[in-house]
Amino acid sequence: MSVPPLLDGLIEALRCMPGIGRKSAQRIAYHLLQRDRDGARKLAGNLIQAMDRIGYCGRCRTFSETSICQLCNSQSRDRTLLCVVESPADVYAVEEAGYRGLYFVLMGHLSPLDGIGPEDLGLEQLEALLAQSETKEVILATNPTVEGEATAHFISDIVRRHALHVTRIAHGVPMGGELEYVDSNTLSRAISGRREF
Amino acid sequence: MSVPPLLDGLIEALRCMPGIGRKSAQRIAYHLLQRDRDGARKLAGNLIQAMDRIGYCGRCRTFSETSICQLCNSQSRDRTLLCVVESPADVYAVEEAGYRGLYFVLMGHLSPLDGIGPEDLGLEQLEALLAQSETKEVILATNPTVEGEATAHFISDIVRRHALHVTRIAHGVPMGGELEYVDSNTLSRAISGRREF
Repeated sequence: MSVPPLLDGLIEALRCMPGIGRKSAQRIAYHLLQRDRDGARKLAGNLIQAMDRIGYCGRCRTFSETSICQLCNSQSRDRTLLCVVESPADVYAVEEAGYRGLYFVLMGHLSPLDGIGPEDLGLEQLEALLAQSETKEVILATNPTVEGEATAHFISDIVRRHALHVTRIAHGVPMGGELEYVDSNTLSRAISGRREF
Repeated sequence: MSVPPLLDGLIEALRCMPGIGRKSAQRIAYHLLQRDRDGARKLAGNLIQAMDRIGYCGRCRTFSETSICQLCNSQSRDRTLLCVVESPADVYAVEEAGYRGLYFVLMGHLSPLDGIGPEDLGLEQLEALLAQSETKEVILATNPTVEGEATAHFISDIVRRHALHVTRIAHGVPMGGELEYVDSNTLSRAISGRREF
């Protein structure tokens, strides 16, 4: 006996979400049909609206409903600082940490094997921005992964061509962590990056 | 800085799915916006269609696009057997196991604390079905939980009033399992339910 076609279609469509396999999709479909049809209809509306109306900021490339995002338009930010991150989620994380400068969102990292080169990360747009804005310091906040580090190196070369100050966020032992449980790579970075106390 | 309202709306709407918290919803929203807008639009369409057009079978109460489901309508099933399960997902599980009789889907289990009584499980409908159908044996395949067992007991009383044969699926050590790792409750059921070899 086969699953009814509409139900099967829904289960397959749910799998477009990352981390959702066939079993989870099935569980979600049953839950929505049995207990939350209104929630599911609302979700459908939100999906359509978001996909159709959320674009990218023309300046920093993050998700935005307007051509220039709220943050780039704000007059209360320190316009001499530019923080380069990999994704819009990173923007919110850096904001939470209290940073109040501007951002540039790569929407990924250099990954030649996946065919992701400098043009996909908007690095020409970044160069144009550096040439014409009041930026004095570029803070590289890409992830501390192999690809993130490579991307940071690549961007630092661009920034130096514009004779601007370029910095990288510190890597070391996380606050509240215990030395015993920190991996040796992180600890070695923490030691080589030690500072005057 | 706040998340753009449409994005925030999408993240909140995604949380109607079981097992999806704020962080997962955020990750899903970013993924769909960045990499799979078409998939998200398709999902929205499937959600609307499924919620609007999938109803319940008038005979066995499982999800169905037609008033009587494909399975209840089928002429190749053994109409003397009726398997009572808690959810449509259980129907597919029992089908996979090779059962070829009919079903009755409770869409839940008795749970007085949550206000779920016999009327919510369609037990009147079950009685009517037993009175008029060719059923000879009712197989109780509710889950082996406290609520599932209570529900099975409750239904067995109904079935006995109709002077029909009532059975419960066997509980014991799962195939391929190791005795050492089986909980004592299951093992005690396996011993008390031992059969001639």
